[in-house]
Amino acid sequence: MTAPVCERLLVVGLGLIGGSLALAARRCGAVREVLAVSRSAETIRTGIARGLIDDGATDYGSVLDRLQPGDVILVSTPTLAVPAAFAAVQSAVARGVILTDAASVKGSVVAAAREVFGDWPATFVPGHPIAGSEKNGVLAAVPELYRHRRVILTPTAASSAGAVRTVRQLWEAVGAEVLEMPAALHDELLAATSHLPHVLAYALVDALAQHRSGEDLFRFAAGGFRDFTRIVASDPQMWHDIVLANREALLAELDRYTQHLAGLRSAIAQQDSAAILALFGRARAAREHFAALFENTDSAEK
Amino acid sequence: MTAPVCERLLVVGLGLIGGSLALAARRCGAVREVLAVSRSAETIRTGIARGLIDDGATDYGSVLDRLQPGDVILVSTPTLAVPAAFAAVQSAVARGVILTDAASVKGSVVAAAREVFGDWPATFVPGHPIAGSEKNGVLAAVPELYRHRRVILTPTAASSAGAVRTVRQLWEAVGAEVLEMPAALHDELLAATSHLPHVLAYALVDALAQHRSGEDLFRFAAGGFRDFTRIVASDPQMWHDIVLANREALLAELDRYTQHLAGLRSAIAQQDSAAILALFGRARAAREHFAALFENTDSAEK
Repeated sequence: MTAPVCERLLVVGLGLIGGSLALAARRCGAVREVLAVSRSAETIRTGIARGLIDDGATDYGSVLDRLQPGDVILVSTPTLAVPAAFAAVQSAVARGVILTDAASVKGSVVAAAREVFGDWPATFVPGHPIAGSEKNGVLAAVPELYRHRRVILTPTAASSAGAVRTVRQLWEAVGAEVLEMPAALHDELLAATSHLPHVLAYALVDALAQHRSGEDLFRFAAGGFRDFTRIVASDPQMWHDIVLANREALLAELDRYTQHLAGLRSAIAQQDSAAILALFGRARAAREHFAALFENTDSAEK
Repeated sequence: MTAPVCERLLVVGLGLIGGSLALAARRCGAVREVLAVSRSAETIRTGIARGLIDDGATDYGSVLDRLQPGDVILVSTPTLAVPAAFAAVQSAVARGVILTDAASVKGSVVAAAREVFGDWPATFVPGHPIAGSEKNGVLAAVPELYRHRRVILTPTAASSAGAVRTVRQLWEAVGAEVLEMPAALHDELLAATSHLPHVLAYALVDALAQHRSGEDLFRFAAGGFRDFTRIVASDPQMWHDIVLANREALLAELDRYTQHLAGLRSAIAQQDSAAILALFGRARAAREHFAALFENTDSAEK
């Protein structure tokens, strides 16, 4: 058991992400009590029955009353629902309760916080656990989801050192490696390595589904295609929210990529062997160079 | 043990593809004798020592003399080396030896055959086993490579029914499922589901390697990125050959894709939620619909 990081954790939105933190934090003793707010009473009942939370409700009132300064609220709703959740917990944050979130895009969350709170509260510490699964919902929650995963915190200019420390310790207690960076850099990195590949893969599968050779295409697709398109199994609503919330960074990366791809197209059309070989070789070398870094992120985020 | 499909099999180019067929065909008794031609004497020695082949040479002369009508030659050299191999075995083919190949592009092979032979020999049966591995070379050969894999044959107008039957039986004997289709359709299907994804993934990794955020990008890449770019581990020279050999079909598919991607870009830029959700949802549904087909191609071709 770890020494408690805080007395109480309130999870707003008890799905895979919030539920897994709740379960792991409870099990390792990082918090003494875990509460939840969910739109669904069934989710709360399931959370209690499965040992994810001690108690919960479908409304904020009674739950927020139980929070003290230094307790932590994790907002783990879908990205576009984060502003409403911030507004709902405003009174608790005003009393010194620490607020963090798990959204995949940080710029939009930071902007929403300023909108809701007028300025950024000192106890507000935006975060993004880079972990996930093809499964969603409270039933998918597992205590090992964050083990050896990275969590990126993007403190605002107003975030207090104490609040950052508490949120960091909470994630570390459940096995994650925590890093800090500016929200804009986070959004650029994730746009390039996660949001862009999702967009490319969704577009490819959709283009092939509408192809004149239709079903035949998929029938003869090999393992490489399966790997390339695995991320298309992700939840469309979640990815809709992400691409809209991070659309500026994503479109910049997409345009860079499209330009790069056009260069490769020219090389193929002109049968420029040297250029094709150089590009393929550089890409393989870069991937090999960084392959060791992937080893740490082997089983989760799809 | 199977009844022999033919007396002798000559493998030209003893790497993963040819070596695996040699080993599997010898083990199951589909052929009585397996010979090989390789540029490397070391490869021939290794092939004999590992039980892939009975005998072999670095030159064609003595080996071709041992082939009789109804024996089979498999050309499994890199795609762009196929025409030279065809020219080298021409005398044997003229005597009624069956000729097939394993190149990933069929239009260019069929064109090369007409170039080399003047017309298509009745014993010429182009083929493509949709199987592979990230590993290359004679040491990577395994007898189970073709088990439950698809092999596409693209007989020409001149291919005799007997030659097609023999080549089909040879692949079936080592566990493959054999299908026939026109070379142009094969090349279109493979351009869309294999060559295009490779080009997209190579371009993405190369674009990110040149990104201003450089190493950080890869450091924070998650499992989805790893899956998406796994095919970039493939051999650059092999893929250079493939994209050039199939460049017309590939460029057509790439242009279709680029247009589709531009449509998605507009939807994101205009925050057209309905269009984004519809596209993501269609893609996921299509992938789920065909997921069962991938199960059969689970461990090989990267």
